[in-house]
Amino acid sequence: MGEFDLIERFFKRPARRADVGIGDDCAVWSPRAGHQWAFSADMLVEGRHFLSTVEPKRLGHKALAVNLSDLAACGATPQAFLLSLALPRADESWLAGFSQGLLDLAEAHGCELIGGDTTQGPLNIAITVMGEVPQGQSILRSGARPGDSVYVSGHLGDARLALEAFRGHVSLPQSVLDMARLRMETPTPRVALGQALRGIAHAMADISDGLLGDLGHILKASTVGAEIELSTTSNLMAVSDQWRCPADLAMTCILSGGDDYELVFTAPESATAHVQAAAVASGTRVTRIGRITDSRQLVLLDASGRVVDAQFRSFDHFA
Amino acid sequence: MGEFDLIERFFKRPARRADVGIGDDCAVWSPRAGHQWAFSADMLVEGRHFLSTVEPKRLGHKALAVNLSDLAACGATPQAFLLSLALPRADESWLAGFSQGLLDLAEAHGCELIGGDTTQGPLNIAITVMGEVPQGQSILRSGARPGDSVYVSGHLGDARLALEAFRGHVSLPQSVLDMARLRMETPTPRVALGQALRGIAHAMADISDGLLGDLGHILKASTVGAEIELSTTSNLMAVSDQWRCPADLAMTCILSGGDDYELVFTAPESATAHVQAAAVASGTRVTRIGRITDSRQLVLLDASGRVVDAQFRSFDHFA
Repeated sequence: MGEFDLIERFFKRPARRADVGIGDDCAVWSPRAGHQWAFSADMLVEGRHFLSTVEPKRLGHKALAVNLSDLAACGATPQAFLLSLALPRADESWLAGFSQGLLDLAEAHGCELIGGDTTQGPLNIAITVMGEVPQGQSILRSGARPGDSVYVSGHLGDARLALEAFRGHVSLPQSVLDMARLRMETPTPRVALGQALRGIAHAMADISDGLLGDLGHILKASTVGAEIELSTTSNLMAVSDQWRCPADLAMTCILSGGDDYELVFTAPESATAHVQAAAVASGTRVTRIGRITDSRQLVLLDASGRVVDAQFRSFDHFA
Repeated sequence: MGEFDLIERFFKRPARRADVGIGDDCAVWSPRAGHQWAFSADMLVEGRHFLSTVEPKRLGHKALAVNLSDLAACGATPQAFLLSLALPRADESWLAGFSQGLLDLAEAHGCELIGGDTTQGPLNIAITVMGEVPQGQSILRSGARPGDSVYVSGHLGDARLALEAFRGHVSLPQSVLDMARLRMETPTPRVALGQALRGIAHAMADISDGLLGDLGHILKASTVGAEIELSTTSNLMAVSDQWRCPADLAMTCILSGGDDYELVFTAPESATAHVQAAAVASGTRVTRIGRITDSRQLVLLDASGRVVDAQFRSFDHFA
């Protein structure tokens, strides 16, 4: 199977919104008036971002999901993506699974694969995704203001829990491991919530490197601080319902786990009802975990409001 | 040096055309009315697309050049790009050279680095580039018509000659090797020519996999054939002036060498003067090498007009 057959067979779909899709030197697209474009790129490397044992279908899902999560974090509506893929060899059953997971998620979000590249090399998946946002309505990291509430979407920490289990640092009941692994391997990008928060959230980021690290990006860009109430975060893991995680491990997983692909955002107290409505409209759980301060510091508070002295580093690929 | 320091230090520049550049979850960009967008992505893998001994500065140049070449092939004006980079380690001197070569070429084309990703892994450079083209003026592969002249830009075959020398298949005088190597390592994307050919060329592609293979894409997309006059192609190598390449090797390098990043395009005979004017205006040599036929076949003709029986395969990463 050659390079062009491979693309034709596993990745090419009829162009829809694109004027020109896969098959020319470039894809061509006519932007809509009154909208800005949002662009993001993420690269996944075997052994670093995923285990070599992951099901190809789940990997295809995740590769696009982590990119859609960045669009969600800006409140953008997914439009199209390009896929550059280095493969050790053209393995048909791998490609069938990978492309299915990838294109099923793309289809679910109306996000069109319009181009890319395939080559031989150590497994590497690089996606660039494009979304549309009405002029002036993108939600940036820099808009948080003192007094804003801080919220997170969905569940946090399960992906890290699965990783700790794979590393042999914790032993989990099979059903708990399966659930945590599913969260690690097939994250749900919060695209509908991101769009629903346009005009409501002041600042937003996606949580890929851990809650505190990604909230830290908002604080830095907005030159503000935050107080996080640990009583509100302690039950954020999806597995909490069926398994009691040791408190220290739970704190690590939830606060600095990484690979969550949830949203952390801020909104004024006056918008509390709008935030709740956005959560309901998008079918996404939202939890208030603290508030923005003018202190320039990120402070953790225990149930009695005392400052907890803890160091949680977020993930850095070259640290 | 952490991931964020690395980006800050080597890759971040102030946003210009971008509304939001590097540093948020997405870049944000306001498209101009009356224009379409062209998108392309190319991935470079060590040992496959470049030798491990290549100077980092040249590699930075090449990584962007091969992408700009795709925009050129559509007649698009470069606007912005995203870079995803997997590195075995954060080597400062490598990064300094690579980013300089990359950003110098970006600067020369007014093409802004607006985002991307960095991670640890086997060296892999994935770029997605975006360009603008006035509505309806992109030059596709599908527009060639019988009777069109076929042209190529610049020089062909030198990159392949350098590769053959590195493989030990041919021995070259040092000055010839240096020149061929420069063509291989720092190709010149024909961006100005591509834009100058808007409204003139019927069909265009860039030559990355070899002249015959990439011309073949035009023929297939346009459901036409072509006759190529080998007398017009025999001196297309840049090194021809100073070194006499054996005829068989020259033919292989020129017709199916690959890694040229020149343009192959067709235009009606009535536009000959316009093609020449576009070549002059863009400072790019253009050579007429044959014509489009309605035969659906790609035929090579010798100096006396006889059909040459030759098989030249273009490069395929999985063949």
